[in-house]
Amino acid sequence: MLFAELLAKVRIVLVNPSDPGNIGASARAMKTMGLKHLYLVTTKAFPCRRASVRASNALDVLAEAVVVNSLEEALWDCTLVFGTSTRIRELNWVSLTPRAAAAKITEVLPQKVAIVFGRERCGLTNQELQRCHFQIHIPANKNYNSLNLGAAVQIVCYELRMAFLEQKETDKKTALVKQRKLASVEQLEHFYKHLQSTLMHVAFLQNSRSLQIMDRLRRLFSRIELDEKELKILRGILSAIQKKIPN
Amino acid sequence: MLFAELLAKVRIVLVNPSDPGNIGASARAMKTMGLKHLYLVTTKAFPCRRASVRASNALDVLAEAVVVNSLEEALWDCTLVFGTSTRIRELNWVSLTPRAAAAKITEVLPQKVAIVFGRERCGLTNQELQRCHFQIHIPANKNYNSLNLGAAVQIVCYELRMAFLEQKETDKKTALVKQRKLASVEQLEHFYKHLQSTLMHVAFLQNSRSLQIMDRLRRLFSRIELDEKELKILRGILSAIQKKIPN
Repeated sequence: MLFAELLAKVRIVLVNPSDPGNIGASARAMKTMGLKHLYLVTTKAFPCRRASVRASNALDVLAEAVVVNSLEEALWDCTLVFGTSTRIRELNWVSLTPRAAAAKITEVLPQKVAIVFGRERCGLTNQELQRCHFQIHIPANKNYNSLNLGAAVQIVCYELRMAFLEQKETDKKTALVKQRKLASVEQLEHFYKHLQSTLMHVAFLQNSRSLQIMDRLRRLFSRIELDEKELKILRGILSAIQKKIPN
Repeated sequence: MLFAELLAKVRIVLVNPSDPGNIGASARAMKTMGLKHLYLVTTKAFPCRRASVRASNALDVLAEAVVVNSLEEALWDCTLVFGTSTRIRELNWVSLTPRAAAAKITEVLPQKVAIVFGRERCGLTNQELQRCHFQIHIPANKNYNSLNLGAAVQIVCYELRMAFLEQKETDKKTALVKQRKLASVEQLEHFYKHLQSTLMHVAFLQNSRSLQIMDRLRRLFSRIELDEKELKILRGILSAIQKKIPN
């Protein structure tokens, strides 16, 4: 599926927005970042001329917006739901930055994902947040964390777009890494065994500190992300050593 | 200097904004991300009630906004100036994403930095962009890249805040790395020499491919960022091998 189609799959849900201007601003924010699907949960503020004015050239997003009577209706076919919140609540949710949430979303697409935004004044109720799998918290100024609704939508949609653009880059890099075939866990375990026996052979490992040192060497080599060719060289070295040492 | 003070040092400059609502939205966007200094270049839209309404609780940023007659006046004491643009122009500027620009800004602070935003309809003129050292380009939807002015300010200020928060994390990590004293180039060179002599000793290195393999081993070990303790272990291994092998 194309990048643009995937991004367009993310649904933005506004719960009871009271200012039609913010609905328009959200539509514009979405479209500038490549999103399309806007859901509005029971709002009197729509349709409204002020929404259209603030939407500017995102009138198509407004025109296709789905108005529903409850949050459940907006979410029923979604696999993963995020709820935004300006405060981190004393509840058992994992709270993510918009960046972390966007990274997670790129992983699960093309499954249906919804991001829910609450009322301008008081956000989402705890009950509404209970319907979300994760909380998104924009790390704002503690002395004034009240972002405008459209601005919050803009940041979240921007992070989504950035995550998708990065994903494209990562895919390219992954292709490169794939050319460089990394050693498997099994190959590494063989190497560690070989290393340990060689070190015992040369009497480097012999006392109670030995296990600790082997752990340390494991941590050291696991940092390198050895590829198969490199592993072959290292094992070649170990074999050469063992061959030279008299029993 | 404290994180909050540094962030507050970044100046946001709006050139000829025509909608007072956008001035208010920009002030609010700034304050939610911890910025304070707003400059307005020749605008008829200020002061205005609509700016105050959209500023919400960022009235202090509006009250302290500096209105000047020219872009030069807004920039004269700044060291580094960024100009935002929705299109990448055929000029010789380096164009950065808001994220890359924010990273750059954290490096130069506490020097004075300004970020310039153009008119709602037509952005900055080429002449105005000439006064900027770098261009910031928000990677928007190619089919509709016209962000609302306040929304663009929100994204850029958000990235600044994120960069500062990350900087704090990096500082912590750097402190940890400093505790973990990395091996110096000189120590590494001694290690490579020791490694090479040992490998020749066990007859692993002996022919024309040897140099190539040593290069490969260097690349491999340089990826690990060995610390001094780890280097000591590795050299201990080499010594143990050499002691065991008959000449």
